[in-house]
Amino acid sequence: MRIDGREAAQLRSITIETGVNKYAEGSVLIAFGDTKVLVTATVEDRVPPFMKGQGKGWVTAEYSMLPRATQSRNQREAARGKLGGRTMEIQRLIGRALRSVVDLQALGERTITLDCDVIQADGGTRTTSITGAFIALAIAVDKLAEKASFKSYPITDYLASVSVGVVNGSPVLDLNYDEDSKAKVDMNVVMTGAGQFVEVQGTGEESPFSRSELDALLGLAETGITELIGKQREVLGQAGARIGEGSR
Amino acid sequence: MRIDGREAAQLRSITIETGVNKYAEGSVLIAFGDTKVLVTATVEDRVPPFMKGQGKGWVTAEYSMLPRATQSRNQREAARGKLGGRTMEIQRLIGRALRSVVDLQALGERTITLDCDVIQADGGTRTTSITGAFIALAIAVDKLAEKASFKSYPITDYLASVSVGVVNGSPVLDLNYDEDSKAKVDMNVVMTGAGQFVEVQGTGEESPFSRSELDALLGLAETGITELIGKQREVLGQAGARIGEGSR
Amino acid sequence: MRIDGREAAQLRSITIETGVNKYAEGSVLIAFGDTKVLVTATVEDRVPPFMKGQGKGWVTAEYSMLPRATQSRNQREAARGKLGGRTMEIQRLIGRALRSVVDLQALGERTITLDCDVIQADGGTRTTSITGAFIALAIAVDKLAEKASFKSYPITDYLASVSVGVVNGSPVLDLNYDEDSKAKVDMNVVMTGAGQFVEVQGTGEESPFSRSELDALLGLAETGITELIGKQREVLGQAGARIGEGSR
Amino acid sequence: MRIDGREAAQLRSITIETGVNKYAEGSVLIAFGDTKVLVTATVEDRVPPFMKGQGKGWVTAEYSMLPRATQSRNQREAARGKLGGRTMEIQRLIGRALRSVVDLQALGERTITLDCDVIQADGGTRTTSITGAFIALAIAVDKLAEKASFKSYPITDYLASVSVGVVNGSPVLDLNYDEDSKAKVDMNVVMTGAGQFVEVQGTGEESPFSRSELDALLGLAETGITELIGKQREVLGQAGARIGEGSR
Amino acid sequence: MRIDGREAAQLRSITIETGVNKYAEGSVLIAFGDTKVLVTATVEDRVPPFMKGQGKGWVTAEYSMLPRATQSRNQREAARGKLGGRTMEIQRLIGRALRSVVDLQALGERTITLDCDVIQADGGTRTTSITGAFIALAIAVDKLAEKASFKSYPITDYLASVSVGVVNGSPVLDLNYDEDSKAKVDMNVVMTGAGQFVEVQGTGEESPFSRSELDALLGLAETGITELIGKQREVLGQAGARIGEGSR
Amino acid sequence: MRIDGREAAQLRSITIETGVNKYAEGSVLIAFGDTKVLVTATVEDRVPPFMKGQGKGWVTAEYSMLPRATQSRNQREAARGKLGGRTMEIQRLIGRALRSVVDLQALGERTITLDCDVIQADGGTRTTSITGAFIALAIAVDKLAEKASFKSYPITDYLASVSVGVVNGSPVLDLNYDEDSKAKVDMNVVMTGAGQFVEVQGTGEESPFSRSELDALLGLAETGITELIGKQREVLGQAGARIGEGSR
Repeated sequence: MRIDGREAAQLRSITIETGVNKYAEGSVLIAFGDTKVLVTATVEDRVPPFMKGQGKGWVTAEYSMLPRATQSRNQREAARGKLGGRTMEIQRLIGRALRSVVDLQALGERTITLDCDVIQADGGTRTTSITGAFIALAIAVDKLAEKASFKSYPITDYLASVSVGVVNGSPVLDLNYDEDSKAKVDMNVVMTGAGQFVEVQGTGEESPFSRSELDALLGLAETGITELIGKQREVLGQAGARIGEGSR
Repeated sequence: MRIDGREAAQLRSITIETGVNKYAEGSVLIAFGDTKVLVTATVEDRVPPFMKGQGKGWVTAEYSMLPRATQSRNQREAARGKLGGRTMEIQRLIGRALRSVVDLQALGERTITLDCDVIQADGGTRTTSITGAFIALAIAVDKLAEKASFKSYPITDYLASVSVGVVNGSPVLDLNYDEDSKAKVDMNVVMTGAGQFVEVQGTGEESPFSRSELDALLGLAETGITELIGKQREVLGQAGARIGEGSR
Repeated sequence: MRIDGREAAQLRSITIETGVNKYAEGSVLIAFGDTKVLVTATVEDRVPPFMKGQGKGWVTAEYSMLPRATQSRNQREAARGKLGGRTMEIQRLIGRALRSVVDLQALGERTITLDCDVIQADGGTRTTSITGAFIALAIAVDKLAEKASFKSYPITDYLASVSVGVVNGSPVLDLNYDEDSKAKVDMNVVMTGAGQFVEVQGTGEESPFSRSELDALLGLAETGITELIGKQREVLGQAGARIGEGSR
Repeated sequence: MRIDGREAAQLRSITIETGVNKYAEGSVLIAFGDTKVLVTATVEDRVPPFMKGQGKGWVTAEYSMLPRATQSRNQREAARGKLGGRTMEIQRLIGRALRSVVDLQALGERTITLDCDVIQADGGTRTTSITGAFIALAIAVDKLAEKASFKSYPITDYLASVSVGVVNGSPVLDLNYDEDSKAKVDMNVVMTGAGQFVEVQGTGEESPFSRSELDALLGLAETGITELIGKQREVLGQAGARIGEGSR
Repeated sequence: MRIDGREAAQLRSITIETGVNKYAEGSVLIAFGDTKVLVTATVEDRVPPFMKGQGKGWVTAEYSMLPRATQSRNQREAARGKLGGRTMEIQRLIGRALRSVVDLQALGERTITLDCDVIQADGGTRTTSITGAFIALAIAVDKLAEKASFKSYPITDYLASVSVGVVNGSPVLDLNYDEDSKAKVDMNVVMTGAGQFVEVQGTGEESPFSRSELDALLGLAETGITELIGKQREVLGQAGARIGEGSR
Repeated sequence: MRIDGREAAQLRSITIETGVNKYAEGSVLIAFGDTKVLVTATVEDRVPPFMKGQGKGWVTAEYSMLPRATQSRNQREAARGKLGGRTMEIQRLIGRALRSVVDLQALGERTITLDCDVIQADGGTRTTSITGAFIALAIAVDKLAEKASFKSYPITDYLASVSVGVVNGSPVLDLNYDEDSKAKVDMNVVMTGAGQFVEVQGTGEESPFSRSELDALLGLAETGITELIGKQREVLGQAGARIGEGSR
C-alpha cells in the first residue's frame, strides 16, 4: 500500500481544464494530484535563426516553477539572472518529446512555443508538463488548421508521459514528492499513442538497478501512459480527430 | 458609455479566491475583470542583510507576468537574464505600499514575501496585485498570530489600489487594457481603510493634465478603493478582525 | 525654520552652466544646492528597433550616480553587472517626462539621449536631472534646427521638476537629503510652462497622507516649478525662443 | 558494415593515459577514437553550502568543450556569459553517475570535482567523460587513502558509460559523430562493475522506438561497458584494488 | 610642429582642482588639455576577502568613461551588463601603479578606492587618471593621518604617468586623441618621484619599433613625469609633506 | 644559480608539436617547461561587424586556463558568467601582437581566431601563448595560400614572446611560477624576426626599477626571443617559407 493509499499501478487523480487563457492559441490547466501546471501554446509565423529558409517549422518549450510552487520558497530564476541546469534540462526534454510527434515540414515556417508554468509541485512536474503540453499543442494546431492549409496534418500521434520508480523495494507508477524523495530508482518515460518509446530516462542515484527492475518499470509506465492518452483523447474530442491522419 | 458598457465610476467584476496554494502561508487568486493575478505570501524567520539586528521585520514583493499573459507572447525575464525596468518599478511599488500598513517592529525579525504572478493581463495588473497581495499578507499574519505573540498586531490598516484615467475626455475608474492604451492620463492610487493616500502616481505622457482633472481622478479612485476594501473585509472575515487593533 | 535656514517655499540655490562638454550636442551642469548633475544630450540619426519605419523620433534618458556621489561609496552598477530598480525607475521617469513636451513626429527619425550623471547627491537627484535634461535637450534641438527643417518646432513647452514633502509636520519645497530622510510624505512633481501636470508621484511609506496635505504639496510644487522654468528661460535665452511655437 | 569498418558491437580504439597534469590529485587523457577528453580530479577539504554539517562529502563534475573541438568553431560559454543547456545537462549527468558509486559518508567532508574538458569531439563526449572521470576519481581517492583514514573505502564499484543507437536500421555500439547525426534512436547508458544500471537515457527525436529495439540496445551497451571496465581495471591496477571493498 | 602647436617634449595645459566633492576623503578634477577626469578617494575600514587577517591594507581603482566623454556616444557598461576589456585593463593598471608607492603594511587594514570617472576624453585618459588618483590618494592619507597613528607614513614616493608615442616619425610627449590615432608606437609610462619606473607599456600595433625609438620615448616620458610631479608637489603643498618619510 | 638550475639567460625546455587537432586549420601544443598551451587557429570567411566592407581581414585571440591548470583549482569563467580582467588583458595582448605581423589588407575579408587554452600553467602562459599562436597562425595561412590567391603574403615577419624579470636581484630569462612570484620586476616582451619590439610591458608592483635594470632585461629578452624564433623556423619549415615575402 502506498503513502496516499494508491495501488502500485494507479495514477493520481488527473484533471484537465482547457481554454484557461483568453489570448493563447491553446491552453490547459492540468493536474496530476497536487501537481498543477498551466500550459499555453503560442503560434508565431517565424522560426528561430538556425531554422530559417528550410521551409520547416519548430516546436519548443519553456518551463518554470512559481517561487512558492514548493514547500519552501525558491528564488526566481529571473531574479538570479539565469536559468538553472534543472530548468534547462526539463525544457529541452519537453520540446524534444513534442517534436517527435510533429511533422515539422507539414507545419510550415511557424514556431509553436509551449509555456509550462508549474503553479504547484508535488512530484512529476515534467511528466505533467509534457502530458499537458501535448493537449495545448493539439488545440493550437487544430485551430491553425482552420485557416492554414497543411499538405498533411502536422501532428502524427498522441503523446504522454509518466514517472515510475522503485519505492520501498516495489515498482510504482506516478510518484508524488514524498515517494520521489525516497525512490531508489526514478524513471521518466514518454510514449506515443502507438505505444512506442520517445524518451526513457532512468536514474539510480541512490543505488544502481537491475535489468529486471528496469523491465518492471517500463511495463508500469506503459500502463499509465495508455490511460493518460485515453484522457487526452476524451478532452480533445473533435480537436484531436485529425491526429495521425498523415501516418495512416 | 465605456467600451465594455460600464459606468465611469464602476469597477470591473471583482473575484477573489483564497487558499489556492497548499504550501503558502497565505494565497489568493484575484481577478479585476480579465486581469488575473495569483499571489502567495511566504513567511520566513530571517530578514535581509540590511535589516539585520534591528529587531524589525520586512515585507517585500516580487512581480512577474507569465509569457502569454498578454495578447502576444513576451520573452521570459529569466531567459533574458534580467528583470526589466517595468517589473522592478512595479515590485518596488507593491512592497512599499504594503509596508505602509505594517508595523515592522511589531512583526519582529521575519520577512514576508508577496509573489504576484500575473496569469492573464487586461490592464491594472499592479493595482490588482496590490489589492490581492494585501489579502494574502493578512491571511499569513493571521495564521502567524496563532503561534507568535505580537506585542501589537502588525497590520495597522486595510489597503487597496485602483487605476483611474482620462479616456475620451472623461475620467473613468479601473481601466481595462483597451482604455489604458487610449488614456491621455493614467493614474494609480493606493489608499488605506482610513481613506488616506499611500501612493499617487499620475502620468500624462500623451498630454499634460490640469489640476481639476487631477481632482476628479482622485475622487473616482477614492470611490473604487472604498468598494475594494469592502470586498477585502468580506473575504477576510475573521482573519481580518485584528487589523488596525494596535492603532485604535 | 528648515534645517538649512530656508523658508518652506524656498528653492535651494540653483546654478546652471551650459556648454560643459565639447562633444555633446547639448550639455549642462546643474546644481540644486549640493546636488550636482551633469547632463549631455546626444542626437543620433536613427531610432530604436520598436520605433522603426514610423517616421517619428524618440527621446530617452539614462541616469547614473558616480560611486562617491553619496556620503558612503556605492558599488558601480557596471561592476555589479546590472542596473538597480531605482536607476531604472528614475531613467524611465526622466524619458517619459521629456517626451511629454516633444512632438516626436516633428522631430523626425532621430533619437535624442539625455545622459544624467549625478556628480554629487544631496536629495532631489531626479528632479534636478529632469530640470537640467530639459535644458540640454532644448540646446540640442535648437542646434539641430540650424540644419534640419522641421515642419513644426519639436519642443512644445518648457518643463521642470521639483520635490515637495511633509517634514516635521510642515509641507516644504525642494528637500535636501536630511529633510528627505525625515519626510513622512515625499512627492516629485513635473510640470510644463503652461502649468499643467506631467507627473505626480507621491509616496507615504512612513505614514499615509490626507487629501489636504496632498493639496498643500501640489501648491508648493507649482510655485517652485514656476521659478525653475523662469531660470530655464533665462539660461536658454534665444535658444529657447521657438519652444512651443507649434502649439501657439 | 559501419562507416568506419567496425562491427556492430565493436568499440572504437580506446586509449587512456594517466598522470597528465602535475597539479591534479588525479588526471587522465582518454580517447574513444577521435573523441579526446582531458579529465582532472581536484580534492578539496570543504563541501558546498547545502551539504555543510552533515559529515558527508560531495562529488561533482564540470564539462566543457574547447571552441575548436568540433568541425566548426563554437563560441566559448565564458564569452557568452552563461552555460548552455546541453553543458548543464551533461555535467549534471556526470556528477550524478559518479556519485552512484561513491559512499559520501565514507568520503567525509571533502569535495571531489571532476573537470572534463573535451579537446576534440567526434561523438560520445559524455560517455567518454564519464568513463575517464571514473579513472581520475579512483586515482584521487587512492592517493587520498594514503593520508586519510576512511572507515570504509569510499568507492563502491567500477563505473563506465557508452552510447548505443539505431543507425541505418541496426543497433550499433559507441557511435561516432557521423553515425550519431544519422541515428534514429540515441541512447547513453551508465553501468557499474556489477552490471547494474545507473543511467539509461534513450531518445527517439527522429522517430519513436519499440521495446525490442530498446532491448537490443541495452544488450549492446552491456557488452561495451564490460569491455570498458576491463580497460579501467588494467589502467588503474593497484590503484583500483580497494574499489568495492566496503561492499564485499 | 604638432597638430596643436606644441613642441615634442611639451605637455598639454595641466589643471588640477582639489576638494571638488564634499563627501570623498580626497577628490580632484584633473585636466590634461581637453581630457578631464574626476577622481575621488574613498577610505573604508575593511579589506577585500583575499586580504583578510594579514594586517595589511589595500589600494584599488575603478575607471569609467561617461557615455558622451567621446566624439560619439558609447553605451554604458552598466547597461551592457559587463565591464569591457579596456576598462578592466586600465583599472588594473591604475591600482597596481598606486600600490607601488604605498606601504600596505603601514596603511593597516583599510581599503582606499580611487574612482576615476572620465568626464571628457581627448587621449591619455589612463595617464591623466593615474596622475590625478595619486593626488586624491595623498589627500585622503594626509587626512587619515590626523586620526590614525601610522607606524610609518604609508605613501613612500610621488607617482605620475604620461603617454609618449611616435607620430609622423617623431617621438612626442602627452599625445592627444588625434595624435594617438595616428601614432605608430604608443607607450604609457608610470614613474616615481625618485625617477624609477613603475610601469612601461609600449605597443607597436601599426608597426614594430626599434630599441633607439624606445630609448627616445623613455627619455621624453621622464621629462614629462618630472614636470607632472612638480605640479603634484605644488598642489599638495603641506598635504604632501610626509610622502616618502618612511623611506628616508 | 636559479631555482631549477638554469643560467640567467637560459630558456626552459621548449617543445612544440603541430597538427594536434584534426579539425583546426592550424594547431600546436607548445610547452615552455611545465607551462603547456594548446593553440588552434580557425579561419572563417567573415569579419566582425566593425570591420565590414573595408576589404580587410582580422586576427583575434581568446585565452583561457583549464580550471586545474594551476596548483589549486580556479572556478571556470563560464560558470562565473564573465571573463576576468586578467583574461581580457591577455587575450587583447595576444591579438594585438599577432596583428603587428599580419597585413590585414593582404589577408582579405577573413577572420583568423587563435584559441589559446592553457592545459598546465607554470609561469609565462601569455608568452607561451603568443609564441605558439604565431605557429598555428602561420600553418593556417600557409594552408589558406593553397586555395586563396593573396596579392602579397599576409604574414610579414616572425613573432615570439618571452618574459624577463629581476629575481633575487638578478635579471633572468623566462621565469617559472616560483620565480615569477618572487620577482620584484616582471616584464613581457614581444619581438619580431627582424629584432623590433612589438610589446614591452614591464611592471614593478613590488618595487620600482631603474633604467639600467630595464636595459638589462630588454637585452635578455632579445636573446630569448631570437632563440624562440629559431625554433619556430625549424618547426614551420616549408610552411614558413613565404613569411615576410611581401616585405622583402
